[in-house]
Amino acid sequence: MKSVIELQEIFNNYLAEQSFEKQPKELYEPFNYILSLGGKRMRPIMVLLGCEMFSNKGETALSQAIAIELFHNFSLIHDDIMDNAPMRRGKPTVHEKYNKNVGILSGDVMLIYAYEYLLCNSGVKTEQLVQLFNKTAIEVCEGQQLDMNFENEMYVSVNDYLKMIELKTAVLLGSALKMGSIIGGAKEQDAQKIYEVGRLLGIAFQLQDDLLDSFGDVKKFGKQLGGDIIQNKKTILLIEAIENASTEQRNQLITWLEKKNFDPKEKVNSIMDLYYQLNIQDIVEKKMLKYYNEALTNLDEIDIPEINKSGLRRFAELLLVRES
Amino acid sequence: MKSVIELQEIFNNYLAEQSFEKQPKELYEPFNYILSLGGKRMRPIMVLLGCEMFSNKGETALSQAIAIELFHNFSLIHDDIMDNAPMRRGKPTVHEKYNKNVGILSGDVMLIYAYEYLLCNSGVKTEQLVQLFNKTAIEVCEGQQLDMNFENEMYVSVNDYLKMIELKTAVLLGSALKMGSIIGGAKEQDAQKIYEVGRLLGIAFQLQDDLLDSFGDVKKFGKQLGGDIIQNKKTILLIEAIENASTEQRNQLITWLEKKNFDPKEKVNSIMDLYYQLNIQDIVEKKMLKYYNEALTNLDEIDIPEINKSGLRRFAELLLVRES
Repeated sequence: MKSVIELQEIFNNYLAEQSFEKQPKELYEPFNYILSLGGKRMRPIMVLLGCEMFSNKGETALSQAIAIELFHNFSLIHDDIMDNAPMRRGKPTVHEKYNKNVGILSGDVMLIYAYEYLLCNSGVKTEQLVQLFNKTAIEVCEGQQLDMNFENEMYVSVNDYLKMIELKTAVLLGSALKMGSIIGGAKEQDAQKIYEVGRLLGIAFQLQDDLLDSFGDVKKFGKQLGGDIIQNKKTILLIEAIENASTEQRNQLITWLEKKNFDPKEKVNSIMDLYYQLNIQDIVEKKMLKYYNEALTNLDEIDIPEINKSGLRRFAELLLVRES
Repeated sequence: MKSVIELQEIFNNYLAEQSFEKQPKELYEPFNYILSLGGKRMRPIMVLLGCEMFSNKGETALSQAIAIELFHNFSLIHDDIMDNAPMRRGKPTVHEKYNKNVGILSGDVMLIYAYEYLLCNSGVKTEQLVQLFNKTAIEVCEGQQLDMNFENEMYVSVNDYLKMIELKTAVLLGSALKMGSIIGGAKEQDAQKIYEVGRLLGIAFQLQDDLLDSFGDVKKFGKQLGGDIIQNKKTILLIEAIENASTEQRNQLITWLEKKNFDPKEKVNSIMDLYYQLNIQDIVEKKMLKYYNEALTNLDEIDIPEINKSGLRRFAELLLVRES
């Protein structure tokens, strides 16, 4: 049973071997650019891990791991255009570095290449893999649309928010693990269980992300805290705060949300103050742990030796016990 | 052997049965909108025709015909954003009617659905179909990039232009016919020949398109002539004109291309005058016929009864002997 670190190295070596140096260069340069920005490669490693758990041969899912990483990067390029985001991982986003048209088109090509890798060496499991991939890809786009819709809505319910992050973020993690497990020969029931592990961890991961933006350790988080607060981003913190606030507290919150001119520091401090009064950190941490524990329950129920689960257990810890 | 008209009806009925009325509606409304704009459904009919020719069962390729139509519409939505085009088939483009973000995201989902249909009921031929589809899809994107690059280049050679339209337009027609033929059970050699038929017809079709914009019959063409001229679009007419012009004529052309303020009618008349002097219509018509005849030569060589070729022969005529 290979460790997460070993699988990560196997993936990075394979990725480095792939060549996207094609013509016209305007189309392919952004490929190499966004892939070079790095990131934790969480999703492709989950593909390899899902495969390794059931077969001890994680590397047989390398093509599909690339497919998932390309899909993820395609969605980052297009989302960054839609969100008008200037920076990604501390560097200019693709549309900032090149232009929007290049971003749209190279994203499109990246999605096509994702299918190219998905179906490479997939053997008899093609149909299953494509169905899973298509379903997931469509859900991720639906999640992004819901997220954009939320920007224009004053109130978003906790359930609507959870549905959105499930689609936008969590299903891809579930799908990554399940895809690997299918290639590794998992029984259908186990493949479904591992999908649940990934999906539930994904929701916990996103809740953690929201928490870190307000309650993280500045030094370890690596960016200014409170960015979400300044932008009125509808995070689980804000949604829970609005739901739990007294009339007076709700009015205070809304006043801040509607202010056009403000001192960012004062806004962050005032809203954080309300978060403390309302015990938001605690509420969200409990919610996050609920999903985390549910994920582990599903992992327990998978019918493979305990030793084969240790990698994913460790991975889940790393995912949640993080500071950035 | 079903006729083109029968295949068209079969396709339109099947398309009407497909439901894209899903949530969130922001994402799926543009699907129904762009598909409702109609068009000749040239590409999906070519899929059915390719299948019919080899099997007399064109309808077995219906899923793949939808896949090709969805891919084509995905590329229209994204191209219209990139080209800043306000109108498509006399109606507002998707990003004009909704907004750019909706255009990007619903285009993405449409591409994913294209794969969903492509692999539906594809049986044992999945790998072949996916390879062909991916190769073609990538080429179409490369063609769009080349087309965008041309906007910033003063001189484009005839060969570069032909390469661009081959990628942006022609390979999809070749691929549509070939995809149908594969499903219809064509031998590899015949599938390759029918691909060539489509590719060559596609080049001829695009040259015809360029011709019609300047030399069409206004009433039948349905839009003002000379739109390409006003926009300095690098069409085969302009490229041939620059290549064949005397120094004086070239200077006249360049003066018009560089003018920022002009009376559109005067510009169209002046450049048309140069086109007449240089015999551009004749030069391009000859070139177009060369591709058309080459297409027919390839069709002749396909190893099926003559009667089975009559539909495609008729289709090729309709494609080229048109006024809009």
